[in-house]
Amino acid sequence: MVTEIRVEKVETSKINTVNFEHLPFGKIFTDHMFECDFVNGEWQQPVIKPYGPLQLDPSARVFHYGQAVFEGMKAYKDDNDNILLFRPHENYLRINISSKRLAIPEFPEDYFFEGLKTLLHLEKDWIKKGRGNSLYIRPFAIASEGAISASPAENYKFMIICSPAQSYYEEEVRVLFSEKYSRSADGGVGFAKAAGNYGAQFYPTSLAQKQGFQQIIWTDASTHEYLEEAGTMNIFFRIGDTLITAPSNDRILDGVTRKCVIQLAEDNNMEVEIRRVRVAEIKEAAKNGTLQEIFGSGTAAVINPIAGFGHGGETFELPKLENSYASFFKEKLMDIQYNTGVDDIHGWCYKV
Amino acid sequence: MVTEIRVEKVETSKINTVNFEHLPFGKIFTDHMFECDFVNGEWQQPVIKPYGPLQLDPSARVFHYGQAVFEGMKAYKDDNDNILLFRPHENYLRINISSKRLAIPEFPEDYFFEGLKTLLHLEKDWIKKGRGNSLYIRPFAIASEGAISASPAENYKFMIICSPAQSYYEEEVRVLFSEKYSRSADGGVGFAKAAGNYGAQFYPTSLAQKQGFQQIIWTDASTHEYLEEAGTMNIFFRIGDTLITAPSNDRILDGVTRKCVIQLAEDNNMEVEIRRVRVAEIKEAAKNGTLQEIFGSGTAAVINPIAGFGHGGETFELPKLENSYASFFKEKLMDIQYNTGVDDIHGWCYKV
Repeated sequence: MVTEIRVEKVETSKINTVNFEHLPFGKIFTDHMFECDFVNGEWQQPVIKPYGPLQLDPSARVFHYGQAVFEGMKAYKDDNDNILLFRPHENYLRINISSKRLAIPEFPEDYFFEGLKTLLHLEKDWIKKGRGNSLYIRPFAIASEGAISASPAENYKFMIICSPAQSYYEEEVRVLFSEKYSRSADGGVGFAKAAGNYGAQFYPTSLAQKQGFQQIIWTDASTHEYLEEAGTMNIFFRIGDTLITAPSNDRILDGVTRKCVIQLAEDNNMEVEIRRVRVAEIKEAAKNGTLQEIFGSGTAAVINPIAGFGHGGETFELPKLENSYASFFKEKLMDIQYNTGVDDIHGWCYKV
Repeated sequence: MVTEIRVEKVETSKINTVNFEHLPFGKIFTDHMFECDFVNGEWQQPVIKPYGPLQLDPSARVFHYGQAVFEGMKAYKDDNDNILLFRPHENYLRINISSKRLAIPEFPEDYFFEGLKTLLHLEKDWIKKGRGNSLYIRPFAIASEGAISASPAENYKFMIICSPAQSYYEEEVRVLFSEKYSRSADGGVGFAKAAGNYGAQFYPTSLAQKQGFQQIIWTDASTHEYLEEAGTMNIFFRIGDTLITAPSNDRILDGVTRKCVIQLAEDNNMEVEIRRVRVAEIKEAAKNGTLQEIFGSGTAAVINPIAGFGHGGETFELPKLENSYASFFKEKLMDIQYNTGVDDIHGWCYKV
């Protein structure tokens, strides 16, 4: 079944007002957006219409109870003007996993993919060629019903908005291993892309920034002895030539880029350990010189090398490697994402 | 300093369309709302205007990152038509504690109280006399800036909306002690009225409801051995004649009604223990007949007696007492809230 999507086009595109050489992340949006309402127990006919403000009752539950989830994806353009997505089915599955945990009705697969395809073809000029350029795609679902009883809403909106992007992090990133604050609890919503997981990180991150760190690597809430994820990225450690990352669980997001890194490492006969990672072991490895690299993986940043870290009043600088795993994975991933002649053996690249 | 609040009145009140005998909780709102924007680094002039929809960019951070906090308060009317609030300063302080944790700028005290007073005088006909009747007041703050980078917003809205209310829970409430799911982590945002804390409870609560329980009493995320709070209420246990409740900490909301219950218990020479409460001890007390009562405390419900609980596949019914602590505290609190001739020795009643 192919869903019929109603399309209302803008009269004039604003694309000529945008400087694609200097794109602040997530502030500029394309001409159109995808919108679908859940009313009377079902998702209604989706519509693509000019990007513009939402009208919501001040009592809409998203404002009061954070009943909201999102995804992050990117579209790329190859040298033949094909529009490419990267494992979009993973994002589709995950937003419904997130929605289920937040008591939001799951979104139909055909609505999602038809919406995405129609929207991307409409916005194709916003996707610029060239490594590093992409269109960041933000599907999200919010509780729109106006009623402040603390229970799941009756009405929702599922939307997709798009923002042209260059690379996410430009500066060197140093991270603080959290000793006091936590991102999520066992039995909580840490595995979901639930809106509330992110706002809750802003204050501790601002404290870390005052100490000269750009981000936090969260540790387990019970003991703060184990390293988990960075909030917008999963985290990999390289000790000697072994790549180590925490297992995904109900506190840690099952990142798409994370899964790709693990697969690429296995494809390339690298040693990979998926296991709990002790703060103490990373500090020890930093001290004895075996810690080669730390890097983050995520849709926004793809692969983000970490320049140093802090914990317990100590700071550590990481060596600058010629042939880092971080750049190896980043190049491999971008070769697939931009379809630059590599063999996409796992079928990750999805032509729209 | 008294803030000047601009007031735009409705042309015609909708109060005559409302059936005050049958008020669904939190679905009907009064004629006006208070709104104040944070722009350019400061809170702008507040305005009270006709209740109506908000216009927000689809990229507003509240939709994506749950950067949002709220409070719950009630206004009462006594027999002399005085409008009364109950310890509103506590709510004022707490919303700023919540805001700080969510990286939202704190709201000025004079804006809050002038806004509240002006709004309540405007809506005085919506506050009905009579025990059980009240006007539920919902102050809240949301990140309104349209930009999806995962960092604190530049712009916010602080709003107050009001909904006429009868008593919150009408049915008997049975609760499930959580064994798997969690509400909050050490070092997290559980102590704050952060929006995301609430949406995260909906799915586990729906599972409990399928088992015949209306609410969950959350346990600590690390061991699930200690009872914490009910998500919209703090929880008290009475074993013999001793009242027991968990200490507030960074996982548990420091409830205003909870504080009042503890104070009233002390005023009345009741035995109160503020300490961690083991699941095992409550089950043991239920089995040996010493568990007299469980009740919740919160602004919406005031005092909410619990009829029974479940844990580990076992269910327990609580005795129906003639002179329960729950009804003692509820009557004492309502005497103060409705100003029915009692001596308000702690000055909790606040005339608007």
